[in-house]
Amino acid sequence: MLAAPPLGDRRWSTMLLRPLLLRPLLLRPRPLPRRRDIHAENTARAAVVDSVLSAFRSICGEDGVSMGGAVREQHGRDESVHRCRPPDVVVFPRCVEEVSALAKVCHKHRLPIIPFGTGTGLEGGVGAVKGGVSFSLRNMEQILDLHQEDFDVTVEPGVTRKTLNAYLRDTGLWFPVDPGADASLCGMAATSASGTNAVRYGTMRENVVNLEVVLADGTIIHTAGKGRRPRKTSAGYNLTNLFVGSEGTLGIITKTTLRLYGIPEAMVSAVCSFPSVQAAVDSTVQILQAGVPIARIEFLDDVMIDACNKFSSLSYPVTPTLFLEFHGSERSVEEQVSTTADITQSNGGADFQWAQDVETRNQLWKARHDAWYAAQALRPGCKAYATDVCVPLSRLPQIIVETKKDLIENKLTGPIAGHVGDGNFHCLMVVDPNDPEELHSVHLFSERLARRALAMDGTCTGEHGVGLGKRALLCEEVGPMAIQLMQGLKDTLDPNNLMNPGKILLPREM
Amino acid sequence: MLAAPPLGDRRWSTMLLRPLLLRPLLLRPRPLPRRRDIHAENTARAAVVDSVLSAFRSICGEDGVSMGGAVREQHGRDESVHRCRPPDVVVFPRCVEEVSALAKVCHKHRLPIIPFGTGTGLEGGVGAVKGGVSFSLRNMEQILDLHQEDFDVTVEPGVTRKTLNAYLRDTGLWFPVDPGADASLCGMAATSASGTNAVRYGTMRENVVNLEVVLADGTIIHTAGKGRRPRKTSAGYNLTNLFVGSEGTLGIITKTTLRLYGIPEAMVSAVCSFPSVQAAVDSTVQILQAGVPIARIEFLDDVMIDACNKFSSLSYPVTPTLFLEFHGSERSVEEQVSTTADITQSNGGADFQWAQDVETRNQLWKARHDAWYAAQALRPGCKAYATDVCVPLSRLPQIIVETKKDLIENKLTGPIAGHVGDGNFHCLMVVDPNDPEELHSVHLFSERLARRALAMDGTCTGEHGVGLGKRALLCEEVGPMAIQLMQGLKDTLDPNNLMNPGKILLPREM
Repeated sequence: MLAAPPLGDRRWSTMLLRPLLLRPLLLRPRPLPRRRDIHAENTARAAVVDSVLSAFRSICGEDGVSMGGAVREQHGRDESVHRCRPPDVVVFPRCVEEVSALAKVCHKHRLPIIPFGTGTGLEGGVGAVKGGVSFSLRNMEQILDLHQEDFDVTVEPGVTRKTLNAYLRDTGLWFPVDPGADASLCGMAATSASGTNAVRYGTMRENVVNLEVVLADGTIIHTAGKGRRPRKTSAGYNLTNLFVGSEGTLGIITKTTLRLYGIPEAMVSAVCSFPSVQAAVDSTVQILQAGVPIARIEFLDDVMIDACNKFSSLSYPVTPTLFLEFHGSERSVEEQVSTTADITQSNGGADFQWAQDVETRNQLWKARHDAWYAAQALRPGCKAYATDVCVPLSRLPQIIVETKKDLIENKLTGPIAGHVGDGNFHCLMVVDPNDPEELHSVHLFSERLARRALAMDGTCTGEHGVGLGKRALLCEEVGPMAIQLMQGLKDTLDPNNLMNPGKILLPREM
Repeated sequence: MLAAPPLGDRRWSTMLLRPLLLRPLLLRPRPLPRRRDIHAENTARAAVVDSVLSAFRSICGEDGVSMGGAVREQHGRDESVHRCRPPDVVVFPRCVEEVSALAKVCHKHRLPIIPFGTGTGLEGGVGAVKGGVSFSLRNMEQILDLHQEDFDVTVEPGVTRKTLNAYLRDTGLWFPVDPGADASLCGMAATSASGTNAVRYGTMRENVVNLEVVLADGTIIHTAGKGRRPRKTSAGYNLTNLFVGSEGTLGIITKTTLRLYGIPEAMVSAVCSFPSVQAAVDSTVQILQAGVPIARIEFLDDVMIDACNKFSSLSYPVTPTLFLEFHGSERSVEEQVSTTADITQSNGGADFQWAQDVETRNQLWKARHDAWYAAQALRPGCKAYATDVCVPLSRLPQIIVETKKDLIENKLTGPIAGHVGDGNFHCLMVVDPNDPEELHSVHLFSERLARRALAMDGTCTGEHGVGLGKRALLCEEVGPMAIQLMQGLKDTLDPNNLMNPGKILLPREM
């Protein structure tokens, strides 16, 4: 399964001698590889790719291999501002055996492997920074083994969360984790996604029961044992949560067993405007302290609500706002609403604007999920980049106020939307991708924001992952010793650095 | 931090050549090490221990090092039937720096390190199977950094769950994970403990936010970065959940940051008797399907309830029984109770016997937690051994019925108690430790039970961990490839196999 590290390989031991050098090194500007070296590397890899095409085609058919420019472009980018890094070739396996066989070919020829779900990531996770083979998993789209009585289901990587929930509609069950985009569920596991419902139902970390994973050398493993789906286990190391959030750098997730929930008898949504950020966030903390099992509690600042009003033809007051949703029995929802209304009113919140029927509720959450496009519409021709810090609840008012001041002082457009029940919020930075000065200014802003979160016991990424953009920040967040441990795990599972190279961890030379 | 594997070390690569041999090897009887070899090994280690005692004393004081027979005996056993395996010496560090310094001495002299919390484990996890140094962490007993508004707290390993909850009493917060024993919270993290409240509040896996860990070579790491406590994060590999459930085999947990919950406005407990196992378990599944956010739902079979009646002077009907607890606002609890009563009655359950005031409720749960002692009292002079399988909910009636039949056929005493909301149950086997035939018979029974659970998509351990007794079963559960991956993780973090050796993974020669 795992190849032994070459006996003469001194990289690991050399690194051990200089843990204290790691931090200063990270702060230095990156030494750019020489253009000639890159060109030679690309030419050599292109020859290798040519030599394996027939093997790829014999595994997943003529239609299962593409080198077309448009297809490669499409698989080299996600929804972030990270520039497109197309792979050398895209393969479309139809089952885990094909994924394994393709991985074995890549392993033999030392070709990078980049798993691709729906391309809805936000941190450049699918970019082929070292070229290689993009594994598009869209043709693996079976929903397997639904166990209604046990509240679990297993899905292949081509199944998105909306497809699953449509499939489940008549069963009385649903899968609540909702990052906004209609992402692949296996991709959501790979990035440890969460979103609006996490305050009540948890993130992917809490809702993945088992994974089927193809490792770099083609070995197929089941993190909790094949077909197992107990609601809890203490059996050995927690391999499932080692792969959840590993962003394709440790293996390709080819099946995910998920925990399901009963669809609540009643769901009610409401919108509430506040005189200040502090009042909205104080309300959030008090609602949680009161033990209200709120399902969604989303904050939108004045700039964000203004953008949403314009984009979705709404007319909410342009002040800090909470979008709320309550799940439960009719009586329980009634009580949750009443407790929540008492709290918001005591903090100066306005009366609730209701969304009770399915259509109005869907409209409301569509507006929230469209915040991304609403932000982009503020500056036509520009692209959005979402920051993603998460801090303890009590630090939210301070970090949001300081961040809004920073935005104004630096003349940046960055409406704020956040899953405040978790302390997680996003500045949706709208940037002109052709203006390097502005891009640089946004980059500096997002680093300041991340460091502000780190100084408040928080994290630089609550749910988007590290990808390409936050590798240096990750080092600051967890420290050089934890980084070394992460690198050790990576080396153990993928000694040749073939699995989505260049993501999460900085290359050793940097 | 991590020592590089010796360049000439071929263990890893040799193992890679024979993955397919792993399974048959496991089924062979263990080759016992020769008595002369063990004696020579012990003598050599005793000399090494003698040579490091002064270093130990200079680190944690004269009182911080003990070689007394009674102290060593006490640190060589937990509450299981596994025989006492005393360490060579017990050390009592007072802070993480002392733990680190002691670990460095052990690392230098290749002495095994066995972390010791309260010794309430149930799988022989603290036994010094290769001798070495027991790290008793009872003198590190500070409760640090309580953040009421953020619902989190950090504790040292000497702090037990009851101590923490007593400390929190006036804050309106509590930590709900409750395995029965008054275990150390860091020990609970190490074994991935859960217990009666897990159906509502999750296990340690869902409630540990951050860990401070001392690795085998004395390096101190913070799994989520020092002092960090966001409610969620996607920052790099999930090191926190790598150590939760690692049973001291990857490092010594010296601090745990935990998620807290608001104490519910109302708590009500009830007892309900059923005509059959099927009726009790069907009720459980339907209660969960109805979305009742039940806090505890515990099953006791007729033998167990009889033992509890006798031990705790109660008088419940001797039939399959559920102990239930409801948490929430007054109104919410009222509704939960009403829905639950409808369901239990439709399954032939008797009227609820109530425990509303604190005292009656505590009495009820004391009786449940005393099940262990109640079982032992069935056969004075005998010891209890708890099995620990967990299966998907729908498989519970079948596995319990088959298991009761197995017990009767084999004339074994094994009352059943279980956290049925999670599909997890225990047979509390009462055995005469001096009757090798009976011990063997119980061993065979527990293997049959574990395999029955595995055949039903379940696990051999829901919450007790693998320890010494379930290493071979773990191989059957996750398969040889996942075992190799676990072994690879162990080798990466602890290349000299010093951390609690012999636990979770079988020695390579076996």
